[in-house]
Amino acid sequence: MADKTALVISAHSADFVWRCGGAIALHQQRGYDVTIVCLSYGERGESAKLWKNEGMTLEKVKEARRIEAENAARALDVHDIQFFDLGDYPLEMDRSAKERLVDVIRKVQPAFMLSHSKVDPYNTDHMYATQMAIECRMIAQAWGHNPGEKVLGAPQLYLFEPHQTEQMEWKPDVFLDISPVWDKKWAAIQCMTGQEHLWHYYRNVAENRANHFRRNSGGQSGGRPATHAEGFQSIFPRTVDEL
Amino acid sequence: MADKTALVISAHSADFVWRCGGAIALHQQRGYDVTIVCLSYGERGESAKLWKNEGMTLEKVKEARRIEAENAARALDVHDIQFFDLGDYPLEMDRSAKERLVDVIRKVQPAFMLSHSKVDPYNTDHMYATQMAIECRMIAQAWGHNPGEKVLGAPQLYLFEPHQTEQMEWKPDVFLDISPVWDKKWAAIQCMTGQEHLWHYYRNVAENRANHFRRNSGGQSGGRPATHAEGFQSIFPRTVDEL
Amino acid sequence: MADKTALVISAHSADFVWRCGGAIALHQQRGYDVTIVCLSYGERGESAKLWKNEGMTLEKVKEARRIEAENAARALDVHDIQFFDLGDYPLEMDRSAKERLVDVIRKVQPAFMLSHSKVDPYNTDHMYATQMAIECRMIAQAWGHNPGEKVLGAPQLYLFEPHQTEQMEWKPDVFLDISPVWDKKWAAIQCMTGQEHLWHYYRNVAENRANHFRRNSGGQSGGRPATHAEGFQSIFPRTVDEL
Amino acid sequence: MADKTALVISAHSADFVWRCGGAIALHQQRGYDVTIVCLSYGERGESAKLWKNEGMTLEKVKEARRIEAENAARALDVHDIQFFDLGDYPLEMDRSAKERLVDVIRKVQPAFMLSHSKVDPYNTDHMYATQMAIECRMIAQAWGHNPGEKVLGAPQLYLFEPHQTEQMEWKPDVFLDISPVWDKKWAAIQCMTGQEHLWHYYRNVAENRANHFRRNSGGQSGGRPATHAEGFQSIFPRTVDEL
Amino acid sequence: MADKTALVISAHSADFVWRCGGAIALHQQRGYDVTIVCLSYGERGESAKLWKNEGMTLEKVKEARRIEAENAARALDVHDIQFFDLGDYPLEMDRSAKERLVDVIRKVQPAFMLSHSKVDPYNTDHMYATQMAIECRMIAQAWGHNPGEKVLGAPQLYLFEPHQTEQMEWKPDVFLDISPVWDKKWAAIQCMTGQEHLWHYYRNVAENRANHFRRNSGGQSGGRPATHAEGFQSIFPRTVDEL
Amino acid sequence: MADKTALVISAHSADFVWRCGGAIALHQQRGYDVTIVCLSYGERGESAKLWKNEGMTLEKVKEARRIEAENAARALDVHDIQFFDLGDYPLEMDRSAKERLVDVIRKVQPAFMLSHSKVDPYNTDHMYATQMAIECRMIAQAWGHNPGEKVLGAPQLYLFEPHQTEQMEWKPDVFLDISPVWDKKWAAIQCMTGQEHLWHYYRNVAENRANHFRRNSGGQSGGRPATHAEGFQSIFPRTVDEL
Repeated sequence: MADKTALVISAHSADFVWRCGGAIALHQQRGYDVTIVCLSYGERGESAKLWKNEGMTLEKVKEARRIEAENAARALDVHDIQFFDLGDYPLEMDRSAKERLVDVIRKVQPAFMLSHSKVDPYNTDHMYATQMAIECRMIAQAWGHNPGEKVLGAPQLYLFEPHQTEQMEWKPDVFLDISPVWDKKWAAIQCMTGQEHLWHYYRNVAENRANHFRRNSGGQSGGRPATHAEGFQSIFPRTVDEL
Repeated sequence: MADKTALVISAHSADFVWRCGGAIALHQQRGYDVTIVCLSYGERGESAKLWKNEGMTLEKVKEARRIEAENAARALDVHDIQFFDLGDYPLEMDRSAKERLVDVIRKVQPAFMLSHSKVDPYNTDHMYATQMAIECRMIAQAWGHNPGEKVLGAPQLYLFEPHQTEQMEWKPDVFLDISPVWDKKWAAIQCMTGQEHLWHYYRNVAENRANHFRRNSGGQSGGRPATHAEGFQSIFPRTVDEL
Repeated sequence: MADKTALVISAHSADFVWRCGGAIALHQQRGYDVTIVCLSYGERGESAKLWKNEGMTLEKVKEARRIEAENAARALDVHDIQFFDLGDYPLEMDRSAKERLVDVIRKVQPAFMLSHSKVDPYNTDHMYATQMAIECRMIAQAWGHNPGEKVLGAPQLYLFEPHQTEQMEWKPDVFLDISPVWDKKWAAIQCMTGQEHLWHYYRNVAENRANHFRRNSGGQSGGRPATHAEGFQSIFPRTVDEL
Repeated sequence: MADKTALVISAHSADFVWRCGGAIALHQQRGYDVTIVCLSYGERGESAKLWKNEGMTLEKVKEARRIEAENAARALDVHDIQFFDLGDYPLEMDRSAKERLVDVIRKVQPAFMLSHSKVDPYNTDHMYATQMAIECRMIAQAWGHNPGEKVLGAPQLYLFEPHQTEQMEWKPDVFLDISPVWDKKWAAIQCMTGQEHLWHYYRNVAENRANHFRRNSGGQSGGRPATHAEGFQSIFPRTVDEL
Repeated sequence: MADKTALVISAHSADFVWRCGGAIALHQQRGYDVTIVCLSYGERGESAKLWKNEGMTLEKVKEARRIEAENAARALDVHDIQFFDLGDYPLEMDRSAKERLVDVIRKVQPAFMLSHSKVDPYNTDHMYATQMAIECRMIAQAWGHNPGEKVLGAPQLYLFEPHQTEQMEWKPDVFLDISPVWDKKWAAIQCMTGQEHLWHYYRNVAENRANHFRRNSGGQSGGRPATHAEGFQSIFPRTVDEL
Repeated sequence: MADKTALVISAHSADFVWRCGGAIALHQQRGYDVTIVCLSYGERGESAKLWKNEGMTLEKVKEARRIEAENAARALDVHDIQFFDLGDYPLEMDRSAKERLVDVIRKVQPAFMLSHSKVDPYNTDHMYATQMAIECRMIAQAWGHNPGEKVLGAPQLYLFEPHQTEQMEWKPDVFLDISPVWDKKWAAIQCMTGQEHLWHYYRNVAENRANHFRRNSGGQSGGRPATHAEGFQSIFPRTVDEL
């Protein structure tokens, strides 16, 4: 089981914590090596609290955000977090940035990938990151891209939970029980000192998704008593031997 | 594993063969007891070939259709096929017909259910059957319906493949490898002597769905060489411990 | 060409005028026999002006509406208009009403059918009429329904233009040039003395749909100079020999 | 302002509490008279906890549910709560039940109406209630229905928040700040002694919807500090004098 | 009320006239300062009539279009119209063009913004302009973008009416009564001498939208007698204190 | 009839064969001149089999792909196939590539165009090609683009059948009977020596689409006995003189 891997593609350096911190910690616990790629630090658009401090510069914000993200990754038992530092608001990826992401995908050979919702009128960086995840997954599957490298198979791409799900046209088709690792996710959340207003919000989300987990696993007639859960939307169909 | 069960709700007596014959045979092989409910025989609307014979009556058509369906069920190793004989074109279920279906659902306590697509402008019986499956699933979950009976949990409802999928707004999110039982499905198909024009069609479907299975399980980089497959669309989210 | 036929299924007795009066007159001119079925008179819900008169009764309203509709049909050169008088707000069809409609469909053997939009939160009679059109089309195709009768083929079902198209999720995929018969449609519209507030509205619609006709037939580079048009949404795919 | 009114149409007797208790209390406070119609008690399908007690009967469950609902209505300052007692799982309304609802609509002449989401594969009673709300709103607008009565205008129909919003294809387009009446909603929630497992869930919902309120009213640049909110989806377009 | 502002983002220099000229004039009358940004002149793609003249050059077309737009703006009482001159068919915005638009947004601090529909297969410039409006709104909200500047709150983005609404998947959720300023909009429309074929079309639109206004404000039972109206689709949910 | 033309825009050099080879051959037979533009060779992403050979280079793959495509075009009786060689995985078109495509569109003046589905999460090149087809169609209609050239009218854009249609949100609204030219399409398919695994798949598709053709042209009551067919989705509404 030691060679199972997963890859998270996070538009800004904090996204992975709120949206799939539980999935990360749980799969680490199950023997996966989870790699996190932060395409940007969210230094311009997701660091309001920091910018309200005096004497702040772009570099200082990026540094503060990097440290928070590294702390959070550590809290989730992740050993591999990479910062592409591509800038945010807007996030943009040129050909070489795409190839850098393809290199990571091919190196990791993930069993599954995680990224943002397909729609987000509040935050175009989020949907752009997902477009890039899809495009780079395709390039990583091309036999003629860096011939000789191990070509990517067909990993699932899960879209993690966005803020204001209904506005993002996001519909979860799988709920993951993260009860066993909730304390780790909560610790990681608390590393996000710049966005304290979201801590409570995402605890509520985790509790309420657990209600959905219970209901969909049987409700009052046999549902499993999860206390915290996360939801995900799959892009591709699954292939199974049993329904 | 002997107590695993599944339930197929088929608007007309032949639908289960084309649309999920492979799933039925496969799960029987895996130790499931699969129950098939045929709400009608399809005697008016899906028996054109029979009606072209001379001296045909409604009863004769129903009898011929019942025999075909029983033969097909046998070919799929099914021991429990029930004919509700509710009439077709249009299929209609009154309160007592619904309660009869609820009784079956509660008795079977299926791990999952199978029925038609949600939309079908060619055949309103199909979408009606799915509405009934959803409504009766809900009633079976009600603690106040026949108090004392074992209440239903939260089984998945899979929508099996309709004819002309795109017109039915049906989108499969799971492909099932039915290669090991294709010969059984093919035998069941050949029991449908009244609809021979569809045999070849559904063999093509099974072969092409296998292509989708291969592609989604890894394609040219590790995809599994399935020869025949079936697709299904899930109505409810899954609850899992691993992505 | 004398044996071409078409069938309009109108929830209330005036709907056919505003929504497809041009199509009716044009096809009559082209040698079609168009049959119009008015499922109700719209006596309760679409006759506000009449009800504001003193001493009005349901029968008087129905009579007034019938006369208007007959006059409009005459203005459109239609010889066959049938009133099912099933009541409105809400319109309801039991099994025998459905069979009556099936009888008409089979007798007419229409090359195409016309009815309402699939969605209408303002007026559930409209979407109900379309459901019935779809269900009865299916029954008319059943070889076991009144065996021996000529079975229906696969006529297109066009949804004519509803009021407030965007709220009805109606999207036209075909525009019909009704310029040659606009005077007839305008005469038919003026037969609707109880709904004078809609005359101008539907003239505007016809003029603006002509703009869409011009644009989609070539715009400023060869578009045909239609002056009036109607739009329709197809339910079923077309079968062609040339794109 | 004393003559402003609103109408809530609740499939089961507890729905109005979780889903729009804040809106009810707030509008009562603003001088509206809010009428609540409970189409059923939810006695069969939404009273699992009660049914687990010994010696329970349908009448006892209904009585218990009625008392809870009356207490909750009182906590929300509502003077008019009506129980139609139509049965649940499934809820069904015949012609006379529809006319009873139309009578209430016409009597109340609501400035706006509230009901369930349009889709709910878990609970068909919910979407059925909304269909009935839409159909009865239409009948109430018919000049020929009980001529002489005051005809209904065009009140907005708001769909209140369902459980598992994403599965219900529900998308809120308006957030209401219920901070001033949260204590009343919380008191009403606590009247629901049979569904204690939902109290915490809906407190979380109210807190998180307040986050959405803050964000959409300006976020970190001027958003209003609401502590609790409710979301609603509008069926009809608004008519305004200023954007 | 003097400090209320609004911002229109128009792909081509004439779009604002047809699509929201009434909203502009009305809000000017109500004390708003409305700023109009024309991203291009529509010089290549929306000036067919001009190009049919002899000796025409790109500069001459742009000049003619600028004069028309300025005249129209004046007719609508607008004092601030800006021409970005970015080119059309296709319209493209690089990083500096985006920042220029962000600067305007921040300077105006609009209470609401207006732009095109999200979909337009006839005219990709239109949907591109809306993408840019959404992206630049986001950048304007970033505390790290030009730190020290006043950060944008959360203004609504209204999508104004496209040509052939149904093809653009545009659905209005708000109708604005522009009767009081119709004469101004009509005057502005007549400034568009190069597109005279659209004058009548958009008068029809305004009249028919007034019908929708009347119907949705009460219809025959209290609807307000608007003579002209405009429709808009909101991107973001509203935040309110009363439904 | 000699001056009828059509234009196929194919992302990779083999796409036109599988997806619209029948339409091409049929229209050639009917006197059309069909032009095929291959934006790339699919050299990186759709040539797995070739890359498994030793000593392969990008140029060799492109050469092999070009020869295959030319052979296939010949088998379909096409005289004009153009290779833009823009690269694949990802396909990218800068301003000059767009203008090159516009030049072809204007030169061909197609009666209709053919390209890919609008959505394709497996292959972003496909949906990118369609975006470009739509954008370049628009530019070709601009009177100010290369003034003096013949401006494009309003040709239909048909989306040909993608792989895994349901995942691509592709819904055919027209079926074309390609029975008379199936032997030519089959010959063209067999030119694709690098993708032999798809031959059988697309023969099944053609056979099953013929079933849809038969059903939609009348089914068991008069449907035409097509043996092979292709499906297409229209982007724009049609303009007609008869329904």
